[in-house]
Amino acid sequence: MDPTSRIELALETAVGQAATEDCPKGLADALRYAVFPGGARVRPRLCLSVAHACGDTDPALADAAASAIELLHCASLVHDDLPCFDDAAIRRGKPSVHLAFGEPIAVLAGDALIVLAFETLARAAGSDAARLARIVGLIGRGVGAPHGIAAGQAWESEPDVDLARYHRTKTGSLFATATMCGAAASGHDPVPWQALGERIGEAFQVADDLRDVVEDTLSTGKPSGQDAARARPSAVTSLGLAGAVRRLEGLVAAAVEAIPPCPGRDELRDQILQESRHFLPKGVPLIAA
Amino acid sequence: MDPTSRIELALETAVGQAATEDCPKGLADALRYAVFPGGARVRPRLCLSVAHACGDTDPALADAAASAIELLHCASLVHDDLPCFDDAAIRRGKPSVHLAFGEPIAVLAGDALIVLAFETLARAAGSDAARLARIVGLIGRGVGAPHGIAAGQAWESEPDVDLARYHRTKTGSLFATATMCGAAASGHDPVPWQALGERIGEAFQVADDLRDVVEDTLSTGKPSGQDAARARPSAVTSLGLAGAVRRLEGLVAAAVEAIPPCPGRDELRDQILQESRHFLPKGVPLIAA
Repeated sequence: MDPTSRIELALETAVGQAATEDCPKGLADALRYAVFPGGARVRPRLCLSVAHACGDTDPALADAAASAIELLHCASLVHDDLPCFDDAAIRRGKPSVHLAFGEPIAVLAGDALIVLAFETLARAAGSDAARLARIVGLIGRGVGAPHGIAAGQAWESEPDVDLARYHRTKTGSLFATATMCGAAASGHDPVPWQALGERIGEAFQVADDLRDVVEDTLSTGKPSGQDAARARPSAVTSLGLAGAVRRLEGLVAAAVEAIPPCPGRDELRDQILQESRHFLPKGVPLIAA
Repeated sequence: MDPTSRIELALETAVGQAATEDCPKGLADALRYAVFPGGARVRPRLCLSVAHACGDTDPALADAAASAIELLHCASLVHDDLPCFDDAAIRRGKPSVHLAFGEPIAVLAGDALIVLAFETLARAAGSDAARLARIVGLIGRGVGAPHGIAAGQAWESEPDVDLARYHRTKTGSLFATATMCGAAASGHDPVPWQALGERIGEAFQVADDLRDVVEDTLSTGKPSGQDAARARPSAVTSLGLAGAVRRLEGLVAAAVEAIPPCPGRDELRDQILQESRHFLPKGVPLIAA
């Protein structure tokens, strides 16, 4: 089965465990709405690419890790869109969860998606439960405090913010989780895979800052110019447009350099280079391709 | 070490892993504030009592389960107090987290506490990782959808609510998680322990409904009369004051009947009967003690 089908099937199975007939209808509908249809599923695809490059020795666990990472990403979007954060009206081209279902259900849908991610991992325990414990720990690190998404968003409430640390926690951490879990799911030591994920995450964040400036609401599915409007740290603000594009290119080059030795190294490098071309907003050319 | 010290130490250790110097200060402070000083720690004490009654064969895992359950309870309080839910100003006798730290940090603190609960379990994996997977699954079931706290709170947004199901999910589920995880942490089959937890949870909910009516803000640490003010389902509304007290007594009696065979059955029964006396609000006498 191709990676996209594996991810969608794993997400369907996971969400189907929560959004049952026993679940309050509003919450069940909101869970589906928050996860389907998805965005580019960049993080779970990265996780499966690394699992594949490492031999894909436990596909069920790799699928569980990939879908848990995407569920957590969706949870973070639902909470990030809330009125007390970005107050976003549009996400993935449709009304944000709190506008469609109300704020209480949006808070609960985010909470339930976080829990569902860990339940999904537990269901994939299989025979090598120690491997599962490692993945639960890695995923927790990527989304909690002090190194994960929750901490990253909390930096927005601090008076002094180090831009690199802000991006590393809010965005980079879940990319690092994706590469590390892909390796761990295939029985490889996850630690050497952290740098790859962090660099891809940093590149993705720079690309997101670029998109925020150069694309319109229709093409990104969310309002543009939000970083400047909210005086949020942005690579474009600090480096300028050309500087940000150069930074993105440098990060992608550094990422592929950071791929650790593994059976599918060359294929993985090609995938990452190809994927990174989609990062760049339409209308912004690569300076050196 | 006595159970209270075990729980506080385990919670200190867990929160210390998240609220580090690397963590944004607002979030770190909010995490501590949400967990310390605690309430009665009823759920983690129940978990450890059951683990003890079952032989306490893996105290580190029992401590992790107990503290994870309390972290999740604290997370649910932080989110339940938010303006879009109860809009509560006071919790445990001090300003609620969103009043003390702002709404964004309150949302993130709840999220980070949920994640921390699962990280805490992963850290306690030890040699029997399969046991850990079972506990992650049980805890996920108790707090997520469709059977756990998130679903329970979501019933408040539905037009038709079955009172029993509402209480079973919003309150009973985490008590059932506590008894089941206590048993599972000591290597016993958790399933026979579900009924005990559910009945204690139901008794606790009835006691909470009674407290909401008869006690004042000073003694409960939160505003009274909120159920009637919000037209929320309540045992006192449906059964009357005397009827609710009789229901509470019946549930406690049914709970001790439901204790499965285990080495420490008699001691556990005595503990539960003693504990349940503290459930009853001051000034409300037991009808048949």
